[in-house]
Amino acid sequence: MAGSSTGPTTVREATGDGGGEGSGASGHKPVLGVGMVGYAFMGAAHSQGWRTVGHAFDLPLRPRLAAVCGRDGQAVREAADRLGWAAAETDWRALIARDDVDLVDICTPGDSHAEIAVAALEAGKHVLCEKPLANTVEEAEAMTEAARAAAARGQLAMTGFNYRRVPAIALARRMISEGRLGTLRHVRVSYLQDWLVDPAFPLTWRLQKPYAGSGALGDLGAHAVDLAQFLAGEPVAGVSALTETFVKERPLPAGATSGLSATGAGGVGQVTVDDAAVFTGRFASGALASFEATRFASGRKNALKVELNGERGSLAFDLERLNELYFHDHTEPGVSAGFRRILVTEPEHPYLEGWWPPGHGLGYEHTFAHQARDLVHAIAARTAPAPSFADGLQVQRVLAAVEESAAKNSVYTPVPA
Amino acid sequence: MAGSSTGPTTVREATGDGGGEGSGASGHKPVLGVGMVGYAFMGAAHSQGWRTVGHAFDLPLRPRLAAVCGRDGQAVREAADRLGWAAAETDWRALIARDDVDLVDICTPGDSHAEIAVAALEAGKHVLCEKPLANTVEEAEAMTEAARAAAARGQLAMTGFNYRRVPAIALARRMISEGRLGTLRHVRVSYLQDWLVDPAFPLTWRLQKPYAGSGALGDLGAHAVDLAQFLAGEPVAGVSALTETFVKERPLPAGATSGLSATGAGGVGQVTVDDAAVFTGRFASGALASFEATRFASGRKNALKVELNGERGSLAFDLERLNELYFHDHTEPGVSAGFRRILVTEPEHPYLEGWWPPGHGLGYEHTFAHQARDLVHAIAARTAPAPSFADGLQVQRVLAAVEESAAKNSVYTPVPA
Amino acid sequence: MAGSSTGPTTVREATGDGGGEGSGASGHKPVLGVGMVGYAFMGAAHSQGWRTVGHAFDLPLRPRLAAVCGRDGQAVREAADRLGWAAAETDWRALIARDDVDLVDICTPGDSHAEIAVAALEAGKHVLCEKPLANTVEEAEAMTEAARAAAARGQLAMTGFNYRRVPAIALARRMISEGRLGTLRHVRVSYLQDWLVDPAFPLTWRLQKPYAGSGALGDLGAHAVDLAQFLAGEPVAGVSALTETFVKERPLPAGATSGLSATGAGGVGQVTVDDAAVFTGRFASGALASFEATRFASGRKNALKVELNGERGSLAFDLERLNELYFHDHTEPGVSAGFRRILVTEPEHPYLEGWWPPGHGLGYEHTFAHQARDLVHAIAARTAPAPSFADGLQVQRVLAAVEESAAKNSVYTPVPA
Amino acid sequence: MAGSSTGPTTVREATGDGGGEGSGASGHKPVLGVGMVGYAFMGAAHSQGWRTVGHAFDLPLRPRLAAVCGRDGQAVREAADRLGWAAAETDWRALIARDDVDLVDICTPGDSHAEIAVAALEAGKHVLCEKPLANTVEEAEAMTEAARAAAARGQLAMTGFNYRRVPAIALARRMISEGRLGTLRHVRVSYLQDWLVDPAFPLTWRLQKPYAGSGALGDLGAHAVDLAQFLAGEPVAGVSALTETFVKERPLPAGATSGLSATGAGGVGQVTVDDAAVFTGRFASGALASFEATRFASGRKNALKVELNGERGSLAFDLERLNELYFHDHTEPGVSAGFRRILVTEPEHPYLEGWWPPGHGLGYEHTFAHQARDLVHAIAARTAPAPSFADGLQVQRVLAAVEESAAKNSVYTPVPA
Repeated sequence: MAGSSTGPTTVREATGDGGGEGSGASGHKPVLGVGMVGYAFMGAAHSQGWRTVGHAFDLPLRPRLAAVCGRDGQAVREAADRLGWAAAETDWRALIARDDVDLVDICTPGDSHAEIAVAALEAGKHVLCEKPLANTVEEAEAMTEAARAAAARGQLAMTGFNYRRVPAIALARRMISEGRLGTLRHVRVSYLQDWLVDPAFPLTWRLQKPYAGSGALGDLGAHAVDLAQFLAGEPVAGVSALTETFVKERPLPAGATSGLSATGAGGVGQVTVDDAAVFTGRFASGALASFEATRFASGRKNALKVELNGERGSLAFDLERLNELYFHDHTEPGVSAGFRRILVTEPEHPYLEGWWPPGHGLGYEHTFAHQARDLVHAIAARTAPAPSFADGLQVQRVLAAVEESAAKNSVYTPVPA
Repeated sequence: MAGSSTGPTTVREATGDGGGEGSGASGHKPVLGVGMVGYAFMGAAHSQGWRTVGHAFDLPLRPRLAAVCGRDGQAVREAADRLGWAAAETDWRALIARDDVDLVDICTPGDSHAEIAVAALEAGKHVLCEKPLANTVEEAEAMTEAARAAAARGQLAMTGFNYRRVPAIALARRMISEGRLGTLRHVRVSYLQDWLVDPAFPLTWRLQKPYAGSGALGDLGAHAVDLAQFLAGEPVAGVSALTETFVKERPLPAGATSGLSATGAGGVGQVTVDDAAVFTGRFASGALASFEATRFASGRKNALKVELNGERGSLAFDLERLNELYFHDHTEPGVSAGFRRILVTEPEHPYLEGWWPPGHGLGYEHTFAHQARDLVHAIAARTAPAPSFADGLQVQRVLAAVEESAAKNSVYTPVPA
Repeated sequence: MAGSSTGPTTVREATGDGGGEGSGASGHKPVLGVGMVGYAFMGAAHSQGWRTVGHAFDLPLRPRLAAVCGRDGQAVREAADRLGWAAAETDWRALIARDDVDLVDICTPGDSHAEIAVAALEAGKHVLCEKPLANTVEEAEAMTEAARAAAARGQLAMTGFNYRRVPAIALARRMISEGRLGTLRHVRVSYLQDWLVDPAFPLTWRLQKPYAGSGALGDLGAHAVDLAQFLAGEPVAGVSALTETFVKERPLPAGATSGLSATGAGGVGQVTVDDAAVFTGRFASGALASFEATRFASGRKNALKVELNGERGSLAFDLERLNELYFHDHTEPGVSAGFRRILVTEPEHPYLEGWWPPGHGLGYEHTFAHQARDLVHAIAARTAPAPSFADGLQVQRVLAAVEESAAKNSVYTPVPA
Repeated sequence: MAGSSTGPTTVREATGDGGGEGSGASGHKPVLGVGMVGYAFMGAAHSQGWRTVGHAFDLPLRPRLAAVCGRDGQAVREAADRLGWAAAETDWRALIARDDVDLVDICTPGDSHAEIAVAALEAGKHVLCEKPLANTVEEAEAMTEAARAAAARGQLAMTGFNYRRVPAIALARRMISEGRLGTLRHVRVSYLQDWLVDPAFPLTWRLQKPYAGSGALGDLGAHAVDLAQFLAGEPVAGVSALTETFVKERPLPAGATSGLSATGAGGVGQVTVDDAAVFTGRFASGALASFEATRFASGRKNALKVELNGERGSLAFDLERLNELYFHDHTEPGVSAGFRRILVTEPEHPYLEGWWPPGHGLGYEHTFAHQARDLVHAIAARTAPAPSFADGLQVQRVLAAVEESAAKNSVYTPVPA
């Protein structure tokens, strides 16, 4: 689509698009060229999403994994080969400039999101940006402004809160929209991991404020806040927070590391982000919220738990059992009421039309295929995708209010509208 | 023991103690005469504990259900008959004055705890007082002072935080004491019920500040705070809190009601206590805590959930499955580590020597028998029981800090030592 | 009732019934004198039931723990004292002969059931007999015949399949009776324990055919078969079975032992009962059944699991979580259907009127109070109790068919009607 | 590999292999051309496996989705496009004959397995054949014989029991091999589905003996038996069985159907396969087994549950929660023992090196990528793959013994070695 004279909504024919991994039914569908920046954990997950989406779903466009970008030429070429990208770039500006890239998918640490996203939008590309949208509210505001301007030109910008695309979460949202919970009273979300429990775990980029912005808060809390707001259907109005860095010094990592694993070299460095954040909040409607994000919950590997209690019912979810949604219908007679386990693998369930028969569960990575599906449909239909950059900014504002409250003796801190 | 000339540590012989329900092996054991004030839900539960304890455990004293007290003469006589008490009184001062009452067990709403407890202690009786210890810190301080003075005379005073006597909780405490969790990082306790979800539920005493002191906070939050401190082995140092009353007016109840059930009459009244409280806190050791207490969690009937995460392991518990304790040993190799479900029904487990073979679970009411067991042993051995009134006061101070924080825009509020 | 000139349906006044443990509201209710034979595990559990039932439920008669019987005079006197029985006997014939015994409760090993039960019935007493009803079909037939004859004289005879009185099981039966499952397709029941895994566990009476009749089959399988038939509402028509004795020799026990625990002395003896039985079966309606009973399932302490699948729904239960019943309503739309966890602690649930608020669970022992409640009501109303001796005989016939099938190369063996 | 003069173990260079979906890192790895017969449910799942495997794992060969075969030209071309196959064939003999096909992957109903597999082996191709291996023992024997002959020529033949490749199952097998369970006592496997509960579900090929061979037995029971034998590490020695067809007539399907979904047309037809099978068995070592396979368990969607009990420990698994393995270590002190939930997502776990960080779970389809991984490694290393055709034959013999036992009044029927 980019590379044509008529702007991003024009699409190229699929014929003759050469090597590289395509995804799904080619037919004579227009191609959507994807360029990805970053190829670590998130890049691998996004790649799997782009490769798979066209085989699982009937899409109006055919995604093509056009090029991937990373700083180390040898490493990025290997990644391109392994992950199925047709080309490799070492400069993200070059990636953005490519004619065969219509959509820029940003999978880098948060410190570079704003610069890349704004440049890509200015270059006429659609943008998908990993969460958290940015490391600061200011950056997120600039990105949102760029997205607003680009929208007028027909370009789309989406924030990568992939957990909205867990079928059980999408079903929960649908049920809440239908009024199955009634007036909300409580929203509680905790996101527990344990990979920092060992004080010998080294100081990777995720533990350094200049790269990561914050710690558990921005990494896990951002998901928690987004889900709370997405499910409740309204923003968090204010928060009161405590944050903590339990282990304040860690060994410096040896050589190249990813954010999640590394081995220590000599020396130690300061941990400059939070290890954990616990906070409470209010929604404008009066519902109470409680949040917890930590990397110090021994034995909890990826335990994102959500529960909402309303006047007419309750819903509960645990990411470690992502094919299940628990629903209590409070309008039923008490004698036979209870939380039911909905196995979210029926054909009527969100996203399930593309997959397997009932009971044959999906995994973590499917959220990226679903995200890609929805984005491709939005691009083809020229409709605004969700979560937008504005949604990402709103989450950022909640996170900033959390940090402000934590810095101000936990005082209740309103989130700017 | 009372009624003798030598004070509360002298005990009467069991022979000839006349009618009324005794509990357990009589032999020639000295009798411990129990007098109970209040006979609603808590009174029934305590009665079951007193009736059963001597049959399940080998005790140094033989508890005797000497007399129960209530304001309505007809009702209290019926209760005495139904619950197994030998006599009925309509004036708690008369109950305290009885020679055959050595221990006063207070099961009334919180507004009368202080007066009865102090009087009983001054009359030379041992006291067991239901939680929360009092409706205000001031009352709790007076009670603690009275207990201190009485202790010098050999009298004991205990606060009825019965959940410490769930075998799984006692086992958790033992394991934590043994160092199985190492340095604590997180304590999270939520206590969720749903009996107020219906706005037509009437305004019972539990919803009125003059009688109940507070709402979910004092009723459920008190248990949550006590368990957090008991398990962590240290007090909460400070809190930041939000409280809410979702339904501000309710129908006035028709006629006599218990705290938990009633039918509406004409007219409405103001709810003057909280419906829910969410709060975070810190322990002096640096561990973070998060708490939630609510009566508005549709579908959650008595869901007291506790989890502690430490550097060496984690523990998790849910009162709705009270025979189970979940333990993750973080010192094990990751390849085979995970939360294990310990069915706390083995003979080596706390309190299980009195009960059934492995796998034959206990229920809610057993906590009252265990409480009675421990109190009887303490009385016989003249050792201080736990939780003491001072422990109950400490919980009260945390609750007061919660209310103060909630009133002061959630600012972090230290708990006085 | 006994001791009067007008037979078992006459009852004595409660006044002046002397010492010993009474149970519950005396008022001027007639007394039902209970005499129990055996005081080990089952005797202790029955005692707790008799002591408690009158305090929890409003009964037409007042049970009185009149006398307990055991062979060792010293031990039975201690047991009487500990368990709350007014008197002790060393000859069960003397117990039966007592004027103050109206009901004989048989808690001995299966080899003595028939003799005691028949004698008690012939002496004009009501009888409650522990399961399995007998060690052989012949004995069970004689007992059933004696019960039939006694019924004509107004006496009642009940088999102690206490698990029918777990509230969740009673609720399941009610739901099935209401047609919530529709045509049944599958019934599967497994009862797994692990106390024989250790080959050093000694040869207690439960491992010897002369005393126990059979092993896991009669002990655990009897419960499984009774529940299957009770819930399905029809008898098992035939079975195909495998049985196995994994450990064929065990150390002889040292001194007195209970059935479930002992220490080894010198020498070894032959295990003459099954360690495990697995069998399948058919109901007359065409539903299939599968059963498993074993004492060799490491880590399974008392795992009695039941599941029934019907055309309109399914139910599932696990005794290790006895306050929960799982129900799938297959008539609901698939999009929101699933097994719901009914916490069987609501006031509308069977037996719950006597206990605690929602969510405050019961334990194993409550089944004995419920059994006592139902039996007392049946005696007062002169209605036939269930399960009857005929029901116990039917289970015995299924167990005999299992043994016959196992002995005949697993051939499908019809159960005589 | 095929198409070269040196037989199946020679491989083509990856360069210039033209269009169609490749899978994973090309580099200069030799290509393994895959040709698949059938493209319904199983074909889609296998396609996802072949497309993905090379991106997730570092393979010695590069699988290429060369061609897919189906009878309907239009439909197979659409499937090829959708599923990522480079070419489409309408005659499986033509597919086998293609030079660019080295491996024939058979995803058709069981009635055509033998003919295609034998022909492919005779044509010098490797073969992967879906389970059950065949519809009769005779066919399976012929296939096994063909595989034996082909093995001598360096060709491999594998049966598609994909559940062996669930990481939790592979971990369970590893732990059993290490002796963590000790002497096995019990193996119980049930595979419950519910898609036939509605009597209006039409008569698809899966309900007709000529196409499917058997019903729940061959479809679900085959998995159950394979897992039991795989995990136990020994074959089932004999069985005793009941089978049933609950709904004997069903509407004829309208037009083209898949096996699992269809709409009814006019008329009815006979169901000629079993709806359910329940059977017990023995292993040579003396362990007992119990099996259940059904399509009539309302609310159970894909509930393949496995439990093994040994003298030193137990393992449990449920396919509806496939990222979890439950392990009880019976050598631990009872006071802290219990079934632990191992979240099988650690890097040390089988197959996890290719996927995501701990706690980020996999789904059903990953088993096909793992199956492909292991087969590609076997082909490259010229080692025999497991499960072999002989393993598939062994399962077939167990299924035949089940049917024989069911036909002979459930008599215990040995499985030929």
